[in-house]
Amino acid sequence: MFKKILIANRGEIALRIIRTCKEMGIKTVAVYSTADKDSLHVKFADEAVCIGKPQSSESYLNIPHLMAAAEITNADAIHPGYGFLAENARFAEICGEHGIKFIGPTPEMIRKMGDKMTAKETMIAAGVPVIPGSEGLLQSLEEAKKLSKQMGLPIILKATAGGGGKGMRVVWKDEELENAYNMAKNEARASFNNDGIYMEKFVEEPRHIEIQVAGDQYGKVCHLSERDCSIQRRHQKLVEESPSPFMTPELREKMGEAAIKAASAINYESVGTIEFLVDKHRNFYFMEMNTRIQVEHGVTEEVINFDLIKEQIKIAAGIPISGKNYTPEMHVIECRINAEDPYNDFRPSPGKITTLHIPGGHGVRVDSHIYAGYVIPPYYDSMVAKLITIAQTREEAINTMERALSEFVIEGVKTTIPFHQQLMRDENFRKGNFTTKFTETFKLV
Amino acid sequence: MFKKILIANRGEIALRIIRTCKEMGIKTVAVYSTADKDSLHVKFADEAVCIGKPQSSESYLNIPHLMAAAEITNADAIHPGYGFLAENARFAEICGEHGIKFIGPTPEMIRKMGDKMTAKETMIAAGVPVIPGSEGLLQSLEEAKKLSKQMGLPIILKATAGGGGKGMRVVWKDEELENAYNMAKNEARASFNNDGIYMEKFVEEPRHIEIQVAGDQYGKVCHLSERDCSIQRRHQKLVEESPSPFMTPELREKMGEAAIKAASAINYESVGTIEFLVDKHRNFYFMEMNTRIQVEHGVTEEVINFDLIKEQIKIAAGIPISGKNYTPEMHVIECRINAEDPYNDFRPSPGKITTLHIPGGHGVRVDSHIYAGYVIPPYYDSMVAKLITIAQTREEAINTMERALSEFVIEGVKTTIPFHQQLMRDENFRKGNFTTKFTETFKLV
Repeated sequence: MFKKILIANRGEIALRIIRTCKEMGIKTVAVYSTADKDSLHVKFADEAVCIGKPQSSESYLNIPHLMAAAEITNADAIHPGYGFLAENARFAEICGEHGIKFIGPTPEMIRKMGDKMTAKETMIAAGVPVIPGSEGLLQSLEEAKKLSKQMGLPIILKATAGGGGKGMRVVWKDEELENAYNMAKNEARASFNNDGIYMEKFVEEPRHIEIQVAGDQYGKVCHLSERDCSIQRRHQKLVEESPSPFMTPELREKMGEAAIKAASAINYESVGTIEFLVDKHRNFYFMEMNTRIQVEHGVTEEVINFDLIKEQIKIAAGIPISGKNYTPEMHVIECRINAEDPYNDFRPSPGKITTLHIPGGHGVRVDSHIYAGYVIPPYYDSMVAKLITIAQTREEAINTMERALSEFVIEGVKTTIPFHQQLMRDENFRKGNFTTKFTETFKLV
Repeated sequence: MFKKILIANRGEIALRIIRTCKEMGIKTVAVYSTADKDSLHVKFADEAVCIGKPQSSESYLNIPHLMAAAEITNADAIHPGYGFLAENARFAEICGEHGIKFIGPTPEMIRKMGDKMTAKETMIAAGVPVIPGSEGLLQSLEEAKKLSKQMGLPIILKATAGGGGKGMRVVWKDEELENAYNMAKNEARASFNNDGIYMEKFVEEPRHIEIQVAGDQYGKVCHLSERDCSIQRRHQKLVEESPSPFMTPELREKMGEAAIKAASAINYESVGTIEFLVDKHRNFYFMEMNTRIQVEHGVTEEVINFDLIKEQIKIAAGIPISGKNYTPEMHVIECRINAEDPYNDFRPSPGKITTLHIPGGHGVRVDSHIYAGYVIPPYYDSMVAKLITIAQTREEAINTMERALSEFVIEGVKTTIPFHQQLMRDENFRKGNFTTKFTETFKLV
């Protein structure tokens, strides 16, 4: 087992990793930018090294500074957390070149899954469903017609240069196709001076459901059930839960199998996540694989009672996994508490926390790096806490979340607590009746 | 279901009950003495009523004040918590006379179990093992000899007026009895001017293991597994855990059965606890029944994932229980964090908390009513937090406890955190090798 792990990250995930290292009897090295000198991860680690200026490029993304910190402290492994260098294949490679174990998959695995086209091809070859679409741009209306027949309606036409819905058309009936094709092309030309368009199967009422996987160095892969992350805003996850209210035992088995196929296709080692889009008919399509620990890993930890960071460290140390698949036994919900103003377009709200009261009691887990007097720096992610509730049923987990949110006091900065409080009371959310588009129409009062 | 519950208590248990009420959509009324006006239970309840001066007799033990508070707020039920009036049969009776539901057993059940002799007789009649002993005082050495043969050695002789070990003798061999009998009598006469002595079976290497039970209004009773509370100091529990490291599946079944028999003997309704003393041969003896929720109920909540306060309220509202018995699935440990100086004979250390940092993360539950700036009043119990850790194995639960204790910062008052930190590192504790006498020889450094 490793003797000393350097954590190449900050905030709650750095603290999260330190906690498991302590429980495993492994020494820890924190690194920090000058903006983070008073951070909890610095206080709770056995050693701490300043690695530069507040800007990430000068500190948390600066590979030479990180490697120097690892060398002077004699760390034998580096945990990258999430974000920053967690999916940087070159960083993983450099760690290896310095004889320091990168806690995560190999550089090759990161590269394969980091490149969208390679990832998609790998999945197709492995028999994992991906969203059907044209191979490159459509050459003619005839090709579009032929393809839409093959895929089945509805389909979506998208401008290759597109963005903001321009040059985008959903086609529900055969007779709409010609008009939509022309409109999309014209709009694309007018908007982007490029009329290239391509076709994809349109995913109706999409949900973001992901499968947590773990693979060891000996080819064994298992899945640890799903997380539903459909509640997003501009592709940023806000709330995650497990089990998904949309899940069925059959779908879980199918998606679990597909996730294992996906990870096995690259002999994946470490913990990782296969993200799927699931349509209203419960067809599911591979979106991408995250070759790292995710923000929302705690949801899985609580729903199956399992320390994922410990597993990740053990795998990196060469310990085999049990290979057992898991089914959720409880219901778990996580709210990401961000220092953002939900009444002002979720604008970041850095600054000093003047008062802090953290909820507790049965069914409540809090992962947070903040304390009363802590100054949230403006340079990094605005997440300040992950509030997780655990109960026997979804309804009870929501009730506990409401209760815990009502106890959570963070003064001095704006937070997303009011958003979560209203979401927990929303009738459609309570019914589990939501898609990835949910927040587009959700109104904060 | 109740519409509004008055909580006739303070501190963490008042907050604990408010939390579950919130989750159940039940309004809450806090009561407080003038010393507790800034307490969290006052802030988090829907309503709060001052019931008098700091002295318990003027407030939390003052039945007229409590009843007045219940009447003016229109509460339809009262939860007594633990301590104070929780096992006061007259209080339960008065609640009933005022048409307010006492959340707990009936006055008759409280009385039966509150009187030691009645409780013992009830248990013997129900076939629950109690510690064998002489019926009243020994009349002669011959009687002592006869009785010790019947019970089997070792036995203990105790002065009826005794205390502090005076007039107490353990007899391991037949030939020691006569001498011990005379010595005990002489010592008792010299110490207490009363040479009455009685005999009991001596419980070798005793452990305090208790079984949580629940019974509904329809005669159904179940058990929710055990808690080991052997780590005590002067009969005050300091650490509780489940499962007991001394437990076997056979013993659990036998003790569970006995606990159900005990509760069924009085048609027990509500949650309650049967406390047993278990000797090194795994013989177990009924000590007493607590007809209330206990401080350490959270251990059971986490080990079987079950809200005991919710169950207690549901039972009081006439909802039937499932009747299913439970077996621990995880390992859970609780440390009671008291504002006491462990280096100064655990002397209470009331005062203002100047800095507070509460641990969090995977496998950690904290129940506490304190906050930074809170002043611990000198009038009440010194417990300020219950720190509970949950893991798959006992070793991991201890490791998580060590980690969580290392994060727990309470400044301004002395606390028992250093005691718990050293206990978690103690080799015998780690091996599960302890009895109720453990802290007598445990040395704090």
